[in-house]
Amino acid sequence: MCTLEKTDDNIFVLTLTGDDEHRMNPTLIGSILSALRDAKEQATSGSVLITTSRGKFFSNGFDLAWAQAAGSKPKAIERLHHMVGLLKPVVAELISLPMPTIAAINGHAAAGGLILALSHDYVYMKRDRGVLYMSEVDIGLTIPDYFNALLRAKIGSPSARRDVLLRGAKVRGDEAVSMGIVEGAHDNEERLREATMSHGKQLASRKWDGEVYKEIRKGLYPELCVVLGLGEAEVIAKL
Amino acid sequence: MCTLEKTDDNIFVLTLTGDDEHRMNPTLIGSILSALRDAKEQATSGSVLITTSRGKFFSNGFDLAWAQAAGSKPKAIERLHHMVGLLKPVVAELISLPMPTIAAINGHAAAGGLILALSHDYVYMKRDRGVLYMSEVDIGLTIPDYFNALLRAKIGSPSARRDVLLRGAKVRGDEAVSMGIVEGAHDNEERLREATMSHGKQLASRKWDGEVYKEIRKGLYPELCVVLGLGEAEVIAKL
Amino acid sequence: MCTLEKTDDNIFVLTLTGDDEHRMNPTLIGSILSALRDAKEQATSGSVLITTSRGKFFSNGFDLAWAQAAGSKPKAIERLHHMVGLLKPVVAELISLPMPTIAAINGHAAAGGLILALSHDYVYMKRDRGVLYMSEVDIGLTIPDYFNALLRAKIGSPSARRDVLLRGAKVRGDEAVSMGIVEGAHDNEERLREATMSHGKQLASRKWDGEVYKEIRKGLYPELCVVLGLGEAEVIAKL
Repeated sequence: MCTLEKTDDNIFVLTLTGDDEHRMNPTLIGSILSALRDAKEQATSGSVLITTSRGKFFSNGFDLAWAQAAGSKPKAIERLHHMVGLLKPVVAELISLPMPTIAAINGHAAAGGLILALSHDYVYMKRDRGVLYMSEVDIGLTIPDYFNALLRAKIGSPSARRDVLLRGAKVRGDEAVSMGIVEGAHDNEERLREATMSHGKQLASRKWDGEVYKEIRKGLYPELCVVLGLGEAEVIAKL
Repeated sequence: MCTLEKTDDNIFVLTLTGDDEHRMNPTLIGSILSALRDAKEQATSGSVLITTSRGKFFSNGFDLAWAQAAGSKPKAIERLHHMVGLLKPVVAELISLPMPTIAAINGHAAAGGLILALSHDYVYMKRDRGVLYMSEVDIGLTIPDYFNALLRAKIGSPSARRDVLLRGAKVRGDEAVSMGIVEGAHDNEERLREATMSHGKQLASRKWDGEVYKEIRKGLYPELCVVLGLGEAEVIAKL
Repeated sequence: MCTLEKTDDNIFVLTLTGDDEHRMNPTLIGSILSALRDAKEQATSGSVLITTSRGKFFSNGFDLAWAQAAGSKPKAIERLHHMVGLLKPVVAELISLPMPTIAAINGHAAAGGLILALSHDYVYMKRDRGVLYMSEVDIGLTIPDYFNALLRAKIGSPSARRDVLLRGAKVRGDEAVSMGIVEGAHDNEERLREATMSHGKQLASRKWDGEVYKEIRKGLYPELCVVLGLGEAEVIAKL
């Protein structure tokens, strides 16, 4: 499902393993949440998290095949809502993780998979392959409240949010940079890995206090924190 | 006042007729609202609305001459507030219309006229003639709450919102594009019509479910929906 | 501490005097608040405020040395919170001042000093010397609620807000323009003064009604007004 490794530079690397679509079902979501909690427990000043995946997909969103295998339409919808509810604590964990976080999108990131990526502080993707895509308008699903709150928090341009959500745009690397959705697009998987690791080391070298970092992040996204149930940012002063 | 026609491509074209300033008074506002409700009733999967007008003005805002004809300053202000209240359901209808919407601004769009245009999903204007202009700071009026909420929802840049509302900037086509207020500016009325119709056909070809489309749009603008009394976005899943 | 002068063009110039860091302690904050209230009392139609300072610093933020001189860590934190509380009415006064406001950042503007600058309608800085810098993540302080609300109101790009608050970026003039934090960067102090004064005269020539201007500004920043205790924007119609 996923692995968590720690480098000598205090960087945690969370990898969605396998060459499949990394569809978000209860098993994968539980595995990611567990890895994030491990990283949080081991966090020290200067820790950084990088999340990436193997294969052609970063993640293609919720496991709709698993939902539909429930046997009836009401049961399928119940399973979908169950997965929507399970992913929420993953987003909350990332928004309250006491360290900088980076997503390296090495392939397609769709729907819940894009939401996972955008829950990180910095997002990089590949230029040659892979699109960002919110498929909901095309397949007939509305958007969960915390998806909307996250997209408002992370994508500043109303026309970019509209193109992603209301036009079902499939966004490639360079366009995603110009729309303000990702930080940068890199030529291939190797360059993406190098750039992400290099940025991670820079952030680690700042040796920020994780608790202060976390509360400043929460203060950046007050509406999202309300939706995620994270509460208000705490006041900390290390004078 | 205004007409509603439907093309063979399932595109509703709402036109403010006549060569005047298309000032928003109770008669014109009622005519627009009625046309929007007709479009909503006839909507099918793949419907699209395009709103445009004849002459040099898209709309020059509320009919202040009609307000002042009330005979006294208090009565004039009462008429103004009456028109502010009447335009609000028009904005609400556009924000909850179960189809993509496009405004083709063929001339000046000022104050309430600009608000009408910005209530659409996509806004195009002409490059050669016509400005966008919120005249309130110049003539001594404050901004109704739903105007402010709409401008926050649709214009992402704080400096653009400030220039429009607090500096009374008269914004031409290319500048409006670079400020993130409109999608595109076209050389003349014919080009504007072609581009708008072409975009409308593209959107119609997606054949989105209108109810899903409407709820995704409402989810994009939660603060605006509260001000407009539209309620929260509903959850729909067509699995 | 600071001076307030009025030009023949109806421009109030508030200057933080002296060549020091203009650290915000109760004395300096009180002096600025008093000057702003003087300007408000003398305001007429067409008044404009320009705020600037002498020396290499616009302001380097709260006077942490004064806080630490309290003798113990709890007393230092108490003094810091006292200063945070004192600066809030200064921001509120600027957001509700019945005239256009311009900050001319002639040197470094850090933490509370940057907040003071961003409380103005238009912000200009120098290209050659001086950075904008929120030092909190580096020194271990969280961000007061009204700082966060002001930064959300004034900086539209989520990546820019993140770089300022969560990465401790030191932002020079040209970068601050491209990040949408300031209006313009000028080559040196003289050019900055000329450009600011020229813009001030343009704004003064519009002779806007101060009360209308103030309420339109408050309507631009509703969340900030709630945090600052300014109440809702009033409705004014000068028909």
